[in-house]
Amino acid sequence: MAPTHEIAHVGHVELRTPDPEASARFFTDVLGLTETAAEGDSVYLRAWDDYERYTVKLTAHATSGVGRVGLRAASPEALARRVAAIDAAGLGLGWRDGDAGVGPCYAFHDPDGHELEIYWETERYRPPAGLVPALKNQAQAYPGRGVGVRRLDHVNYLAEDVAGSTAFVQDVLGGAPTEQIMLDDGTVSGRWMHFTNKSYDLVYTRDWTGSRGRLHHVAFATDTREDILRAADICLDKGVFIETGPHKHAIQQTFFLYVYEPGGNRVELCNPCARLILAPDWNLITWTEAERAKGQAWGLKTIESFHTHGTPPVELPADG
Amino acid sequence: MAPTHEIAHVGHVELRTPDPEASARFFTDVLGLTETAAEGDSVYLRAWDDYERYTVKLTAHATSGVGRVGLRAASPEALARRVAAIDAAGLGLGWRDGDAGVGPCYAFHDPDGHELEIYWETERYRPPAGLVPALKNQAQAYPGRGVGVRRLDHVNYLAEDVAGSTAFVQDVLGGAPTEQIMLDDGTVSGRWMHFTNKSYDLVYTRDWTGSRGRLHHVAFATDTREDILRAADICLDKGVFIETGPHKHAIQQTFFLYVYEPGGNRVELCNPCARLILAPDWNLITWTEAERAKGQAWGLKTIESFHTHGTPPVELPADG
Amino acid sequence: MAPTHEIAHVGHVELRTPDPEASARFFTDVLGLTETAAEGDSVYLRAWDDYERYTVKLTAHATSGVGRVGLRAASPEALARRVAAIDAAGLGLGWRDGDAGVGPCYAFHDPDGHELEIYWETERYRPPAGLVPALKNQAQAYPGRGVGVRRLDHVNYLAEDVAGSTAFVQDVLGGAPTEQIMLDDGTVSGRWMHFTNKSYDLVYTRDWTGSRGRLHHVAFATDTREDILRAADICLDKGVFIETGPHKHAIQQTFFLYVYEPGGNRVELCNPCARLILAPDWNLITWTEAERAKGQAWGLKTIESFHTHGTPPVELPADG
Amino acid sequence: MAPTHEIAHVGHVELRTPDPEASARFFTDVLGLTETAAEGDSVYLRAWDDYERYTVKLTAHATSGVGRVGLRAASPEALARRVAAIDAAGLGLGWRDGDAGVGPCYAFHDPDGHELEIYWETERYRPPAGLVPALKNQAQAYPGRGVGVRRLDHVNYLAEDVAGSTAFVQDVLGGAPTEQIMLDDGTVSGRWMHFTNKSYDLVYTRDWTGSRGRLHHVAFATDTREDILRAADICLDKGVFIETGPHKHAIQQTFFLYVYEPGGNRVELCNPCARLILAPDWNLITWTEAERAKGQAWGLKTIESFHTHGTPPVELPADG
Repeated sequence: MAPTHEIAHVGHVELRTPDPEASARFFTDVLGLTETAAEGDSVYLRAWDDYERYTVKLTAHATSGVGRVGLRAASPEALARRVAAIDAAGLGLGWRDGDAGVGPCYAFHDPDGHELEIYWETERYRPPAGLVPALKNQAQAYPGRGVGVRRLDHVNYLAEDVAGSTAFVQDVLGGAPTEQIMLDDGTVSGRWMHFTNKSYDLVYTRDWTGSRGRLHHVAFATDTREDILRAADICLDKGVFIETGPHKHAIQQTFFLYVYEPGGNRVELCNPCARLILAPDWNLITWTEAERAKGQAWGLKTIESFHTHGTPPVELPADG
Repeated sequence: MAPTHEIAHVGHVELRTPDPEASARFFTDVLGLTETAAEGDSVYLRAWDDYERYTVKLTAHATSGVGRVGLRAASPEALARRVAAIDAAGLGLGWRDGDAGVGPCYAFHDPDGHELEIYWETERYRPPAGLVPALKNQAQAYPGRGVGVRRLDHVNYLAEDVAGSTAFVQDVLGGAPTEQIMLDDGTVSGRWMHFTNKSYDLVYTRDWTGSRGRLHHVAFATDTREDILRAADICLDKGVFIETGPHKHAIQQTFFLYVYEPGGNRVELCNPCARLILAPDWNLITWTEAERAKGQAWGLKTIESFHTHGTPPVELPADG
Repeated sequence: MAPTHEIAHVGHVELRTPDPEASARFFTDVLGLTETAAEGDSVYLRAWDDYERYTVKLTAHATSGVGRVGLRAASPEALARRVAAIDAAGLGLGWRDGDAGVGPCYAFHDPDGHELEIYWETERYRPPAGLVPALKNQAQAYPGRGVGVRRLDHVNYLAEDVAGSTAFVQDVLGGAPTEQIMLDDGTVSGRWMHFTNKSYDLVYTRDWTGSRGRLHHVAFATDTREDILRAADICLDKGVFIETGPHKHAIQQTFFLYVYEPGGNRVELCNPCARLILAPDWNLITWTEAERAKGQAWGLKTIESFHTHGTPPVELPADG
Repeated sequence: MAPTHEIAHVGHVELRTPDPEASARFFTDVLGLTETAAEGDSVYLRAWDDYERYTVKLTAHATSGVGRVGLRAASPEALARRVAAIDAAGLGLGWRDGDAGVGPCYAFHDPDGHELEIYWETERYRPPAGLVPALKNQAQAYPGRGVGVRRLDHVNYLAEDVAGSTAFVQDVLGGAPTEQIMLDDGTVSGRWMHFTNKSYDLVYTRDWTGSRGRLHHVAFATDTREDILRAADICLDKGVFIETGPHKHAIQQTFFLYVYEPGGNRVELCNPCARLILAPDWNLITWTEAERAKGQAWGLKTIESFHTHGTPPVELPADG
């Protein structure tokens, strides 16, 4: 089961923060992103290997959480086909002007109510003096600041109904699942969807509160595992809350560090260690409850707050 | 310009060696491959993350060089379409039985005379006791022997006519170029073709002897750059000839080590350091002679033997 | 407070195992040690950067635990002085013949009853064919097997009275403390002693059972942190019990992985990441209970079994 | 042959630069040093793991080159003994006030005319707000800027007479040689001296111009080899001249990168990869001309400019 290659990759993500100044400092000074634009309540940021003008839109807001996530279509034709499919699924919101170099976008909801957009046109990043890379096959000079993450990697949504949301990603957007967690009662509590040879691009895990449209985390890829070990030192010294890691996930085998940015959103730093899905008939891996109870790859117990912290925060139902 | 996704990946490569025992020891003890079959003059080998039964066929032969390279189609339909296209291009050789778990293959030549095959059916590797991995999303336990390369990565052919050979890969097989070298006279002397998000899968560089069908190198990916630094230590202690590296290529930014296996074939150990081509409209990077004269990324001069050693060896024309 | 440089380093350690075959396979196949001798119930092992013939003596025994630990004196004169001092302290056991290349040893007890020996004469390791290193400033070729640990690093004893035992190491052997844990009631519950620029060589932590002469762990240094991450993969695949890690200690900032060898002894793989004590007037670092409650450097809670697993196992007193 | 431990370590080095602003930017922005004082024509800088207030004094000067290098004595008594020995050797220059937190220094020349000082008293670095580390056993928070070197590592002088200069280091200062190069005619053309378990602290290599008092390079240690690979990227993007590397030295097996700071002085970034000299009777390693002709560990030819670039620059004698 392979992705149809109609979606090229996750292009950008909007994060909402109640503490925009501190969040901006986190993304620029700690993660090492570069600010490329500012407009209204938002600043636009990018990692050095991202080829578009921006990949993160950071917006001042009453709460934390995720705003619109952009998916780049693989071609103008793929865009047209996906818009038609989304429209047919009754989840279209209509065309919008893109932000900061992005052309026309078709906005839509996934079944869980997360807002996404799909687009084709986008401007290549043009580095200003001082950020021009020495090698012409690279988008921007390495900034040499903080963690220095390489690129936006993936988005992990929380959803009330993981199976339904990921069926939409598969049937309408053309993604494919690579791994999932199936509870003993048959419920899918997490499913990792990919569009590319990356083993996942969009992930859905179950929202324990039963609410909809929330975020588990946004992730940035580093060049190496050493970058993630160093990131933990940097976060420690900078007072950034480290939730768990560094360690290696059993699922997808990603080397990870989870922190909370000052606005409250969970951010993962991840390194896939050369892992790619090359098989066009990859067999979906299903993890059972018993298998997941073993924790992460090397035995670290899955941290409890993975099941209690999502953004924006919500009140748990009284009998939850 | 994106690949059409008709080819999923390079599936296997046949290497010829005049010293089959020493070559087999190199691949198993130094690189850490696992032998999975032996038949006639050939042994079949695999890296721990390769999902098929074999990725390297090592064949006793009068000379070094490359035998048939296998490309896995993205689907049965893609296979049928590519066979038709190859046939239309007049380069088809006909159907063959695949080796060691591989189903029917359609053999063909590229314009330079290298022999390839395209196939869909293949068996998943089933590890014997002792090689069953602890994590179910991995094909084989990490062997813990020698370099421990992760997977077959790419093949770099030598060709008389780089532009013509890569046009075939693009037009008939659906690959796309990501980077190339163009000499001052307009000749393309090297072109890096990809089928996936990997930035290259098949590379053609100019054969300075004017001969055809030869090999520059076969490459294996490691998890980390540290694995490549360690590989250099291992090769040093094991008496394996180190040609150049470790260093970082300017082209593709791959971290590399080049060695010669005992049969004489050049083998690259490579690490892409999280680099992927995500843009579906990647702009082909063209390097000039002047740019290439600067050497590799950090200034190492390109080693002269890159332009004098290919396999099998040939006599240079007297006035070459 | 600097060490007096009378002791050059920890030279070797004897480990007892009730499962000698499995333990030997662990040390050779998983850690990558090389066997250099076997005699009676013992095998002698070494890491590739150890310069002496052996650093680990593995002895079949009814229980797990630590046997005699050898300290190499800095000179013949230092040996004589230390023997006199040990003798004066009433802890001498007399001269013994050394094992496997080690000359005369003076055996003694520390105040907790651990048996040690001090010696000067020792044979340099002479590698057999196949293990001769390519570089003449290295003791042995890198074996390319399993984790490939570099050298014996340190011994961590359990002791009823940490302050008393470490006072002996300081006053009689000439070590110096670099870090310690002091409980709120003033008890020293752990103290890290060093003889060299390494920040620790002998560590004493409190035995919660009140028994004496036991072992917390023996540690081997790897070249890199990546080696430790890989070690975790290898242990996972080989079925070696991983107790905790990889992570970074707050104390000494060592990057660590703790596993149990099949005989039950805890083994640490550690990497100091270039940390050295260069200051001759290093200020002893004292950690409080509150500080230790924060866990390891990046927030991992100190694993409970650190306080319940020592070797040999003992019955906890009924009211313990 | 072991060092006598009278010298604790190389404490600081003064570098002269004809382009002080660019040099300061290099040390702070590229290497990631922290400025702690400025006075007259000098700025004082430190790496995050250095425990003293400064380790580099950067002084505006007509030429490049090395000024006074400070050695910290192991104790007040060792200071007194070394001053007496230096004085007896006729190379004393007298007592001076130390810079930026350093107490009284006794200045002297080595036989080649390099100026050094020896001292005991020194102030511990006290980090200002923003640079206070999270872990109390660390001198300063990791700055997260540029390469982020860990500490000053060693000084490599050029000298007319290597054997004579290093005999002084051994006989008068109490150092010991760990490795050397001996030419076929018996001349020692390079000798690596150490005072600690580090395998070298002061190195002398032959000045091909026959001049005296010059510098080959000053070196800073990084935590990891990955830091050095990243450093090469940073230098490439920042326009810092990379002379050679990254690669591994055969001598001492150090992983290295050599660059020129804007004032012209050669700077090495080095990582020892856990290598320590623990043997108190280390056998001096002697490399022959033939062995050195093999180049560095993995085969990189020793760069020609190693034998033509020293600071300050001098005119080669006409028949040189």
